[in-house]
Amino acid sequence: MEKKKIKIGLIGLGTVGTGVYKTLQTFDNIEVAKIAVKNKNKKRNIPNLDENLITDNPYEVVNNPEIDIVCELIGGMEPAYDLITTAIKNGKHIVTANKELLAKRGVEIFNFAEQHNKVILYEAAIAGGIPIIMPIKTILAGNKINKVEAILNGTTNYILTKMDVQSASYDDVLKEAQDLGYAETDPTGDVEGFDAAYKITTLATLAFKKRIKFENVYREGITKVRAEDMKAANDLGYKIKLIASAKMDEKGRADVRVHPMLVPMASTLAHIDYVTNAVSLTGHPIGHITLSGPGAGELPTASSVVGDILAIAAELGTTDYLLPMMRCYHEDLADCVNILDTENKYYLSLNAKNNKGVIGNIGNICAECNISVESIVQKNVLENNTADITVITEICREKDMQNAVRAFEESSFINNVNSLIRVQV
Amino acid sequence: MEKKKIKIGLIGLGTVGTGVYKTLQTFDNIEVAKIAVKNKNKKRNIPNLDENLITDNPYEVVNNPEIDIVCELIGGMEPAYDLITTAIKNGKHIVTANKELLAKRGVEIFNFAEQHNKVILYEAAIAGGIPIIMPIKTILAGNKINKVEAILNGTTNYILTKMDVQSASYDDVLKEAQDLGYAETDPTGDVEGFDAAYKITTLATLAFKKRIKFENVYREGITKVRAEDMKAANDLGYKIKLIASAKMDEKGRADVRVHPMLVPMASTLAHIDYVTNAVSLTGHPIGHITLSGPGAGELPTASSVVGDILAIAAELGTTDYLLPMMRCYHEDLADCVNILDTENKYYLSLNAKNNKGVIGNIGNICAECNISVESIVQKNVLENNTADITVITEICREKDMQNAVRAFEESSFINNVNSLIRVQV
Repeated sequence: MEKKKIKIGLIGLGTVGTGVYKTLQTFDNIEVAKIAVKNKNKKRNIPNLDENLITDNPYEVVNNPEIDIVCELIGGMEPAYDLITTAIKNGKHIVTANKELLAKRGVEIFNFAEQHNKVILYEAAIAGGIPIIMPIKTILAGNKINKVEAILNGTTNYILTKMDVQSASYDDVLKEAQDLGYAETDPTGDVEGFDAAYKITTLATLAFKKRIKFENVYREGITKVRAEDMKAANDLGYKIKLIASAKMDEKGRADVRVHPMLVPMASTLAHIDYVTNAVSLTGHPIGHITLSGPGAGELPTASSVVGDILAIAAELGTTDYLLPMMRCYHEDLADCVNILDTENKYYLSLNAKNNKGVIGNIGNICAECNISVESIVQKNVLENNTADITVITEICREKDMQNAVRAFEESSFINNVNSLIRVQV
Repeated sequence: MEKKKIKIGLIGLGTVGTGVYKTLQTFDNIEVAKIAVKNKNKKRNIPNLDENLITDNPYEVVNNPEIDIVCELIGGMEPAYDLITTAIKNGKHIVTANKELLAKRGVEIFNFAEQHNKVILYEAAIAGGIPIIMPIKTILAGNKINKVEAILNGTTNYILTKMDVQSASYDDVLKEAQDLGYAETDPTGDVEGFDAAYKITTLATLAFKKRIKFENVYREGITKVRAEDMKAANDLGYKIKLIASAKMDEKGRADVRVHPMLVPMASTLAHIDYVTNAVSLTGHPIGHITLSGPGAGELPTASSVVGDILAIAAELGTTDYLLPMMRCYHEDLADCVNILDTENKYYLSLNAKNNKGVIGNIGNICAECNISVESIVQKNVLENNTADITVITEICREKDMQNAVRAFEESSFINNVNSLIRVQV
């Protein structure tokens, strides 16, 4: 049976678009019919690219009656939102890698697609090349997922790994990462945890089958992690990673966050290094699985985009209602817990005068704040006759820890609260 | 739209069947209509099980006109083959966990199903709860997979981990594993690598899109791995694991095997311990991903069976040609390479008289057999005035290594060839 070629419109021919274009060349039944770019004159890393495919008007893609599937690969809120909704109105299915748009306007877009009986797939938006979205919707559909813990950003994982391996400062490693192209000139989106927060918003929504609002995701980046924290963590048997997590508490509230964590060396995520990403899921009846691989990059991300395209292409023309399992759009809002209402285990680094009364003061403040201490370690006296003291607490309330931090800041024994980092339990 | 309930027939109510039955109770649109067991009187770990569902005649399942999907969970060749083909003739789709049947008669069964326009899904047959089969068929369908490396058997991984952690002998740990239920009374299927070999046969077929014949899979179990090998490996920075692997060589021949390997501590598979399984895929454009989790067990395996059931259930009644992406049946036979025509890196343990000429003899034999040596280490002199010598070679031909082993056996300097284990590169 001779099938008509499936026609793809690409919006964006940057890193991801280039990888998608190249990979699609190997599929005889699929044709890239139009590619929208910002700058028609920019040199592309694609040999023999037919200039007639290129336009600088993305509406020539979404309004093109021949096109079956539109791949939105430019990111950001506008014009991506308008392009996607216009494409849907014009009868096209959507494949996107746009984590920010999905995190902030996912509900509207998914509803709009469903009203028009069109499918939106977005594997590449979360964890790059690692297969996670489609497996959750399909082969893992028999599970109730209770917890997600993930490393979802390659830039920050690269920086933290380098800091650890080289005992180097955040600023030095950031500069190195920028020189190598692993971090942007303006790295805010990565290092302040926005990228990971967008991704966990959508991943948690899918996992818990309830809509998580991006504004309810607690977000803390890596800019305050110090080389000294890395060393102290290692000495105690931990690595420091930027962890994106989501869990349901016993009251059915969603606790979704991105922040640095001390992660035990025995845990899987401790060994996910450099630009590798990983997602661990805990659920019933599956138990615990971990999927790891490249979270970004031209080729890995293309694998996910092309996988989504092929899924749609396989059913186009054979059924009116494509991919029923892959239309998991959750509107009911999750009740989200505020970080202040959570309980955590903490690593705390304090700088204090070299004074015998310090340890007692720290212990007293913790006790007054209802915090049990697991360990207090004072390794070295520094040149200025102060000492950095490492405290590991037992699980306690975030409110109580914030009170303790204020008390330390006011204490005459303590010069500085160097760091406060939550510890994975 | 009120949908009729999808009716499932289970063949088998052992570990996996029990987990599937329990998990399916949570799905309103799915009903277990009949369950075939060997022994109707056996006590089942299922509260409130309706006795009317139970039969000891599996043909009451496969011939039942109401049943939409048959889950074959008894394993083995017969009567599973006849039950599956009968069910297909009677218009039912199939979900199976039967690794042996797929490895040995997969082509026939898949062809038969395709002729009858029925689907066979088998996620649970390979790597238990870990999602791998459906992702390869769907979200990873844009990739050319070049290599698969996996730990696919929980019993042997448990034994090897315990031997390592406890510095214990294979025999002692096997007994322990049997007492705990991690190994069977007759453990042959696991410890001789049959289970892993069945699984890699089907996994490699899917990955390379060419049929691998089970007889062409090189298979070597763990029964000869010694505690001394574990220690020697650790000292050199390796763990010992039973690795199931598949790769395409530069001549397009498939190299598919199961055997113990020294695995570098830096590699992901080195940290997959106890009953955990893992699959690493290398391909283009994805790069390298690893999926790890429970390879067996009532609940994890149920996750995979139920995922397959839900995939079929989602499209039943909505289309004549279900799940086009998931019908990946490869008939063309792969050209498989024989282990003797491969090249590998080796660990060799030799026992020799405590004699200054030994090292020279070992070096000479290796040179004569065209083998480059990376290291020779003699740690201790044993009580009987002999020494165990550890040799690590560079990559060399299997034929040459077999020649060297024969020469060592004949050498007057060497008392015994203790071990020969290939090393992961």
